[in-house]
Amino acid sequence: MTSSIFDLQLPHAEPSTMVAFAENPLDRRSEERGEDCVEQAFRTAGVHAFAFAGGKLVVKHDEKIIDPLFAPYELAGLDPVTEDTILLGYQKNGEPRLAVPVRSDPDALHEPLKAADGRTLYRQQMLTDDLLGQFAQASSLLTWNASNRFCGKCGTRTRMEAGGYRRVCEGCSHTIFPRTDPVAIMLVIDLERDLCLLGRSPHFPEGMYSCLAGFVEPGETIEHAVRRETFEESGIKVGRVRYHASQPWPMPHSLMIGCYGEARSFDIHRDERELEDCRWFTRAETEAMLARNAVIGLAPGETTPPPKGAIAHRLMRDWLDWA
Amino acid sequence: MTSSIFDLQLPHAEPSTMVAFAENPLDRRSEERGEDCVEQAFRTAGVHAFAFAGGKLVVKHDEKIIDPLFAPYELAGLDPVTEDTILLGYQKNGEPRLAVPVRSDPDALHEPLKAADGRTLYRQQMLTDDLLGQFAQASSLLTWNASNRFCGKCGTRTRMEAGGYRRVCEGCSHTIFPRTDPVAIMLVIDLERDLCLLGRSPHFPEGMYSCLAGFVEPGETIEHAVRRETFEESGIKVGRVRYHASQPWPMPHSLMIGCYGEARSFDIHRDERELEDCRWFTRAETEAMLARNAVIGLAPGETTPPPKGAIAHRLMRDWLDWA
Repeated sequence: MTSSIFDLQLPHAEPSTMVAFAENPLDRRSEERGEDCVEQAFRTAGVHAFAFAGGKLVVKHDEKIIDPLFAPYELAGLDPVTEDTILLGYQKNGEPRLAVPVRSDPDALHEPLKAADGRTLYRQQMLTDDLLGQFAQASSLLTWNASNRFCGKCGTRTRMEAGGYRRVCEGCSHTIFPRTDPVAIMLVIDLERDLCLLGRSPHFPEGMYSCLAGFVEPGETIEHAVRRETFEESGIKVGRVRYHASQPWPMPHSLMIGCYGEARSFDIHRDERELEDCRWFTRAETEAMLARNAVIGLAPGETTPPPKGAIAHRLMRDWLDWA
Repeated sequence: MTSSIFDLQLPHAEPSTMVAFAENPLDRRSEERGEDCVEQAFRTAGVHAFAFAGGKLVVKHDEKIIDPLFAPYELAGLDPVTEDTILLGYQKNGEPRLAVPVRSDPDALHEPLKAADGRTLYRQQMLTDDLLGQFAQASSLLTWNASNRFCGKCGTRTRMEAGGYRRVCEGCSHTIFPRTDPVAIMLVIDLERDLCLLGRSPHFPEGMYSCLAGFVEPGETIEHAVRRETFEESGIKVGRVRYHASQPWPMPHSLMIGCYGEARSFDIHRDERELEDCRWFTRAETEAMLARNAVIGLAPGETTPPPKGAIAHRLMRDWLDWA
């Protein structure tokens, strides 16, 4: 048996720690989310909150720092929706951390305040890794709560419980929990020719290629989803599948499950509705693409990779380094 | 570096194919779920449907066979809710397969019909592996559709689209997609002492022990969820985490993500609200437990494993066989 990426040992650093949105040092104390946990947190010394306006994170900034944490007295001017506050968890020193939607218009904030969405925070590296992870948790939960104000079974209003981790229908008592959508994202490798398969969605920035991906459907294993999605999007058949890393993706609340897939066919039949292009890249082409990460202007035909911190970038980098 | 389960090569058979609910030969053609796909399927020769009464699967049975597939003319007597029909996919020969909720009372069916829930179908091995996988897909989708008849954003009615894979609000056009809940389930191993960590929920059958497990929360990686849940339930700290296998779990619509975790501590502090017991088992004790799989009467103090086909059973078996 020849050695391949499917036989790799675990690297020294866990790949799931080397992606954006993955670091979050808060202690969630998920078993202790009692009825008044948010109220108690608001009264605890050192409590701070992330504030979200129109789904965007509000930050205080000057030329040197960007600070997304608000003490309770600082929130007042933003018109917070206190009853929709979510308890994220606790710092090592016991200080609680919250997330609060505010009514302020994100486009009408005054200096030193401004608002930024998840993609901007991540691509422009506006937050430390730890804060970006907490943002992911906060944003996913606020979006889920906002999308579930009414019961899907009977249409009656629901109320938030357990610090934002549960909603209960005021009519029929139907109870729901936060939603996380598993997505299979895969770098498919032709072992014999030493190629990887990348595609281009029409929504991508110019020149960018990335791994194929799609939601894991009800009744599928992760491995099934990798094979089905790859076949549907590219016509390539996949044999062995190896899990590599996962990443929280808070747009709106996904869990990216990064895998390598072993190609069992070579001719690409692209799904023209999903992909603008799909092709095999050599190791050298992939290496050159990753080196163009921060490029400003592209020469005609030049390709760019997904941003650093994207799990697709990680899959490409790790194929080059470890296989 | 000594060899451990964390350094294992992939076995010859993919572990995710060796669990219940995982086999499903239908071609989902997920990119082709058009507006009239269910109507077209009903008109296609060879179409068959699974029928669900009160959430249970209706089957035709005699002493020899159990048949869960209904031709359209056979459905009439069950009072089907045709407009809620879901398109699961297609057989290799092109015959479509559907899932239809019916109004018949599952407890008042006449011979040769009866109804069974997912756990019974699985524990009593009433269906072939292929049909059990299709049941998982059907049951997850029907439950999701039934729980989302009203819009969570505005409370207006939603309508089914894309053969049951999408719902759209008639009021605000908010669009939602089927939900799959990722669950981390882990066998935590003490490498030095060669022990595995198992727990007992008060809901388990007498004597049964299984792996610890919990939902992956918003903003977590799979590895984070394994460490958090293990620590919260048992007080055990986990270092390295290795993905092993996944399993669709249609009660109601989960994706079990099975991992090994490396214990970094030994003293157990059990969460008494979640677990009735939690302790370390030797390799010999685990082997003996798995051998008692089909036991009828237990001697006092004897333990039983999760059923064959459960991913927890797989994690225990594979630890014994491959580590």
